[in-house]
Amino acid sequence: MPDIDNALIIRLLDLAGIGVFALSGALMAVRLRQTLVTAAFFALVTGVGGGSVRDLLIGAPVFWVHDSAIAAMCIAIALIVWITPERWWPGHLLEWADAVGLAGYAVFGTAKALAWGVPPVPALMMGVITGCVGGTIRDILAGVPSIIMRPEIYVTAAALASGLYLVLLWLGLGTAVAAIIGACAGFILRGAAIRWSLGLPVYKAPPESG
Amino acid sequence: MPDIDNALIIRLLDLAGIGVFALSGALMAVRLRQTLVTAAFFALVTGVGGGSVRDLLIGAPVFWVHDSAIAAMCIAIALIVWITPERWWPGHLLEWADAVGLAGYAVFGTAKALAWGVPPVPALMMGVITGCVGGTIRDILAGVPSIIMRPEIYVTAAALASGLYLVLLWLGLGTAVAAIIGACAGFILRGAAIRWSLGLPVYKAPPESG
Amino acid sequence: MPDIDNALIIRLLDLAGIGVFALSGALMAVRLRQTLVTAAFFALVTGVGGGSVRDLLIGAPVFWVHDSAIAAMCIAIALIVWITPERWWPGHLLEWADAVGLAGYAVFGTAKALAWGVPPVPALMMGVITGCVGGTIRDILAGVPSIIMRPEIYVTAAALASGLYLVLLWLGLGTAVAAIIGACAGFILRGAAIRWSLGLPVYKAPPESG
Repeated sequence: MPDIDNALIIRLLDLAGIGVFALSGALMAVRLRQTLVTAAFFALVTGVGGGSVRDLLIGAPVFWVHDSAIAAMCIAIALIVWITPERWWPGHLLEWADAVGLAGYAVFGTAKALAWGVPPVPALMMGVITGCVGGTIRDILAGVPSIIMRPEIYVTAAALASGLYLVLLWLGLGTAVAAIIGACAGFILRGAAIRWSLGLPVYKAPPESG
Repeated sequence: MPDIDNALIIRLLDLAGIGVFALSGALMAVRLRQTLVTAAFFALVTGVGGGSVRDLLIGAPVFWVHDSAIAAMCIAIALIVWITPERWWPGHLLEWADAVGLAGYAVFGTAKALAWGVPPVPALMMGVITGCVGGTIRDILAGVPSIIMRPEIYVTAAALASGLYLVLLWLGLGTAVAAIIGACAGFILRGAAIRWSLGLPVYKAPPESG
Repeated sequence: MPDIDNALIIRLLDLAGIGVFALSGALMAVRLRQTLVTAAFFALVTGVGGGSVRDLLIGAPVFWVHDSAIAAMCIAIALIVWITPERWWPGHLLEWADAVGLAGYAVFGTAKALAWGVPPVPALMMGVITGCVGGTIRDILAGVPSIIMRPEIYVTAAALASGLYLVLLWLGLGTAVAAIIGACAGFILRGAAIRWSLGLPVYKAPPESG
């Protein structure tokens, strides 16, 4: 599929990650009865937190620091949440927005790490870390239990998105197709976890051998 | 006011931020009955945490890593807190020291970001982030609720200091005057919030329209 | 002792730090009944967290990002914890693994900082910070009280390891000897703190003078 603009797909995954994480951050601040300014701060920190850590780790310039549009977008999202009726933003929306950000950011983080010459195994980890860091910072700042420790699948969904993207690239698929399939798979797994409180088998001591 | 030494004013705001945040970190450790060494660690992390994150994000060398004096100052502050009578350090002093650090660091963070070529909107965010990060790290390490989530104004005071500094610069005022006015305004707002438990209007669902 | 390979000793301290912190992270995830994938994530974040912060602060490339072996080792450690009987990993093993990592990482962090031209006082702090950050991130993510705030000595043991290493270097001992003595002293102090719930004198108001 050479006609698909790979850079565009990757850019859209990035903006989706920033936007929905920013939304989840603003919703958290509003639910905790904070001010508009604090909501904008939460939107920014949640939206760009994962990507900032990724950029620092791979040695890239931090993407939003020299780009006014991203910080402005986060502020605008906080403002929209603030001025709209609360019933537009039901409680579980935060979880679903977070799920989109998780899947999009995981693939984008892995793609950017590969583009900066990071080998596959650390690139997988980079996708997981950057997918999970935004929501984790939001939860730690808000003083609620970190989302990555909930009983349902979370980190695993990010790892699926990043890992499937890497495997599909290795199988020779184009970047765009691999990115879309990876992100969708991660989102579906996280969505199923939210919808049916799905969890992977957790650790149990195996039967004694020998 | 060309006779005022801008670099000196900015440097003093920086040292004020480091020193009072270090003091607030040492006081927190002492109140939690930790050892002198842990108090020195808290003084350093709280004192330089915000500036370190700022420097990493804007791509500057982290300011205290190659400057022995700053780490030594934080250790000295912890020692002073340690060897002096506890009644010298009443409970609310931590909050007021934190307020000075918040306002000073917010303006300094924005000024340093501008000096490194960061555009105004991210530079504003950089001031807020660096003003809030030191106290946030201190609170997270100590296991107390993060100061930025208290009902009174906190993040907003940092945003006022940084934002007013930017507006005054844009209006043509000198760096020193803009910095002093911005920092004082931020400190006054945070001080009023401490004194009268002041909060900005928090989120309420607006009446339904149309 | 010119025949000892300094680089090898330092490298072993580094791998010891990564490996045992990774082990402590995987054990924490398993004890919290998380999935294998989350255990691998915890192993990595705990194992490389301290070194990553150190490398960012001193301006070095983050060591594990371009080295697939380290991430793979952390994943393997999580897998080993996962597939082995739980009785192989008694509860206090996490604390002892953490103690080895603390001492090894503190010395290694200081040594690497010196190698990058950091002066002694910040290099001491770099050892303490990097020794303590891995376990701190693990505890914050897991939502348990941060290990550095426990009543027994923790930060102080890291400071002893780093400080003794610096003093012995300054006295003219070779890198390898100084590193081994420093790491052992830090481990012994932390081990004694675990074994006998040892604490340094905590802050008490001194008698009023004058």
